[in-house]
Amino acid sequence: MAIVAAVERTPRERQAAEGVIAQLAARFGNRLVTSQAVREQHGHTTTWITNQPPDAVVFPQSTEDVQEVVRLCAAARVPVIAFGTGTSLEGQVNAPRGGICLDFRDMNRVLAVHAEDLSCVIEPGITRKQLNEHLRDTGVFFPIDPGADASLGGMAATRASGTNAVRYGTMKDNVLALKVVTAGGEVMSTARRAKKSSAGYDLTRLMVGAEGTLGIITELTLRLAGIPEAIASGVCPFPSVEAACNAAILTIQSGIPVARIELLDALQVKACNLYSKLSLPETPMLFVEFHGTDASVAEQSERFGDIAKELGGGPFDWATRAEDRTRLWQARHDSYWSIRQLRPGTEALSSDVCVPISRLAECVTETQRDAEASGFVAPMVGHVGDGNFHMLLLVDTKDTDEIKRAEALLERLVDRALAMDGTCTGEHGVGQGKMKYLAAEHGEPALAAMRAIKRALDPLDIFNPGKIFAL
Amino acid sequence: MAIVAAVERTPRERQAAEGVIAQLAARFGNRLVTSQAVREQHGHTTTWITNQPPDAVVFPQSTEDVQEVVRLCAAARVPVIAFGTGTSLEGQVNAPRGGICLDFRDMNRVLAVHAEDLSCVIEPGITRKQLNEHLRDTGVFFPIDPGADASLGGMAATRASGTNAVRYGTMKDNVLALKVVTAGGEVMSTARRAKKSSAGYDLTRLMVGAEGTLGIITELTLRLAGIPEAIASGVCPFPSVEAACNAAILTIQSGIPVARIELLDALQVKACNLYSKLSLPETPMLFVEFHGTDASVAEQSERFGDIAKELGGGPFDWATRAEDRTRLWQARHDSYWSIRQLRPGTEALSSDVCVPISRLAECVTETQRDAEASGFVAPMVGHVGDGNFHMLLLVDTKDTDEIKRAEALLERLVDRALAMDGTCTGEHGVGQGKMKYLAAEHGEPALAAMRAIKRALDPLDIFNPGKIFAL
Repeated sequence: MAIVAAVERTPRERQAAEGVIAQLAARFGNRLVTSQAVREQHGHTTTWITNQPPDAVVFPQSTEDVQEVVRLCAAARVPVIAFGTGTSLEGQVNAPRGGICLDFRDMNRVLAVHAEDLSCVIEPGITRKQLNEHLRDTGVFFPIDPGADASLGGMAATRASGTNAVRYGTMKDNVLALKVVTAGGEVMSTARRAKKSSAGYDLTRLMVGAEGTLGIITELTLRLAGIPEAIASGVCPFPSVEAACNAAILTIQSGIPVARIELLDALQVKACNLYSKLSLPETPMLFVEFHGTDASVAEQSERFGDIAKELGGGPFDWATRAEDRTRLWQARHDSYWSIRQLRPGTEALSSDVCVPISRLAECVTETQRDAEASGFVAPMVGHVGDGNFHMLLLVDTKDTDEIKRAEALLERLVDRALAMDGTCTGEHGVGQGKMKYLAAEHGEPALAAMRAIKRALDPLDIFNPGKIFAL
Repeated sequence: MAIVAAVERTPRERQAAEGVIAQLAARFGNRLVTSQAVREQHGHTTTWITNQPPDAVVFPQSTEDVQEVVRLCAAARVPVIAFGTGTSLEGQVNAPRGGICLDFRDMNRVLAVHAEDLSCVIEPGITRKQLNEHLRDTGVFFPIDPGADASLGGMAATRASGTNAVRYGTMKDNVLALKVVTAGGEVMSTARRAKKSSAGYDLTRLMVGAEGTLGIITELTLRLAGIPEAIASGVCPFPSVEAACNAAILTIQSGIPVARIELLDALQVKACNLYSKLSLPETPMLFVEFHGTDASVAEQSERFGDIAKELGGGPFDWATRAEDRTRLWQARHDSYWSIRQLRPGTEALSSDVCVPISRLAECVTETQRDAEASGFVAPMVGHVGDGNFHMLLLVDTKDTDEIKRAEALLERLVDRALAMDGTCTGEHGVGQGKMKYLAAEHGEPALAAMRAIKRALDPLDIFNPGKIFAL
């Protein structure tokens, strides 16, 4: 089963790859792996896009290693695909034209922590949990949390965000500078460590979200945040998705600096109850979190409770105990796993769109109706403060007719979001899975500009070819 | 007196411009102006960079008008320079190769306000004060405040920020989407109105800060913020610049969501006292502001007062009365005007650099010493929460030797900032004045990438040529 057609490579392409592998073997020894199992682990493994393994996997230990791989590949016009943890959802790490996968597993060091500046310098292979573990005693933390324990390099490449983007922003807001190996094998620094700059084009933001198609990230300077003195969390039931969305809108408009505000629809709450042994009322629900001082999180919680009540929601139970919070957010983060039991034997496909927050309730409700009418079990979870939500679609991947109906449902979801001035992906990225929507979303002039930039920075199309758009 | 050499144009260039002007006259009638006085008003007028007027000024009223000008200019290879209010500080609106200036005075409408989504859609000629006047009764406002009442199009083009960037970010963080006329005369939409997206390259951030060299902005979708329920402001004296900077660092690390935190050195405080009839102690001073609820601004103010005291500063007087706040911030905003009386008969040159906040005290203090040793009167004001500060240099522009010494002082300021991993400009942009620093700041690979992007999107170099970098 495939939603992406495999590419038939030419004999020249195969020979070129073989030639590069021979050269890499001489240089990298057992840090070059060509076994079928390892190659397949480095093609796309999550959800239902076909696995397209690279020809070989290299484990670089330095920027110089990466430069060497890129130079050899550029000379032979062989693709180079960067790999973090493989948790991307739209086929970002697949190798449709083969090539060399750079697995950053061994480049996972923290190079510097500048607590006074609220910044740090890291290698791309470190995961967000590893980084926060390292920062544990410094009073600062890295706030972006996409759920999966993804690598920071991969999070930057896909412009990831997650539950607390409503307060702390996305990767675009939290990367200060990057070191990038260019198509010419040179090392480019996109910016300095200053918190802001007006000195020339914003290469940092251009590389963030480029999904490895414009260069290979080998170092990141990240913004950090002070660990809040107090955190309060709670859950609040609502009579409808609309009431919950309106509560989120009012909360943000009132200037309550909510740190997370997550919508779960009734179906998702049911799944969480089953999987995480909770006993929540099975109705639309907001999970919220406030960061601040003891006094301010209490004030924020009370104000949120008032807003919820005004909109027919509540009661809002909140707590500041770490154990209670952890249990709650673990359940939220486990939503992807929890839903599988709603329809055993199926695979879960997670798709995300993002719309202006004023259209969110409408978009979620119409999508629920559409999914139900199409005969699917499809719970929804939403980063409601950003207008971003996920449909978690359970599909029997042995049933080709069902796959077709699922694809049609997903297309209607994107059409609906675009019609509301939204985007086909708020945080997962385009990869292979959403390439077909880019023209409708951006229009031809913007797509032409993206292609022109790609050709200017990667004229041989060696970096992650076959992703985002066709050249 | 000039810090930028005039460019001698070829006869072909002059003829091409004349041909375009004839065509534009037929199309735009009295919305095309070629008088010497108006042309000079549209060359660089602030501070000391030589005025280089365009050949003609057009006042477009629509995106279609802009497309027409760009198409005619592209066909004849005549430069196109976008103009907002002319308040940029590094020669951004100069026309070193002549060409057509697009003055967006008449494109200043608010096209839509989406209060629920905290966003609005505007034309580029509207100024920030006009926009906030328009938004007055909606409960939302546009927070970026660079001091000057600049146009929003110009603020986006220079990646402007200002006093409350520490809380609300810079233009890069507050532009959701742009409509841009491309070098081919097409209209490109860089993004949708969703708050976040991972769909393709970040063309919005590429255009923000490109200083009109990649396209002409004809529409902006901006993020807005809820008007805070309560605002508290105050001033706090410190025994040294270092103590003031450390107070700012501790404030931010503690997670106090300060909305503005501005450093004035002793010389600047003296100038403010004289100009704005204040009686502040003439010592380094922080002007701070807190946004929130009544309870939270009180708590923030008290916590800041404690931090200041700990570092030998204080007493911290704060007030929530609008009149008191206005008087204070007016004095801060008038700093540019206030300093002229410190040395009558001179011109004031404002230059800005930005460094990691941990290096700010050192950078300011060394620069003070350097300015004094060089015989200059040069007060400093700093957006200390961002590590960004301005040296306001008073120069007798009739004294060529003094000009040389001033230029040398400015170069040393930039060298000092770069040596501290900072940038040659935190918020003014590069224009003509800082072109010479770009290679040292970014290195050749990044500069090569910027040039490649420029060539890809503006192959004929018609958009604001001679700015940011030489092609």
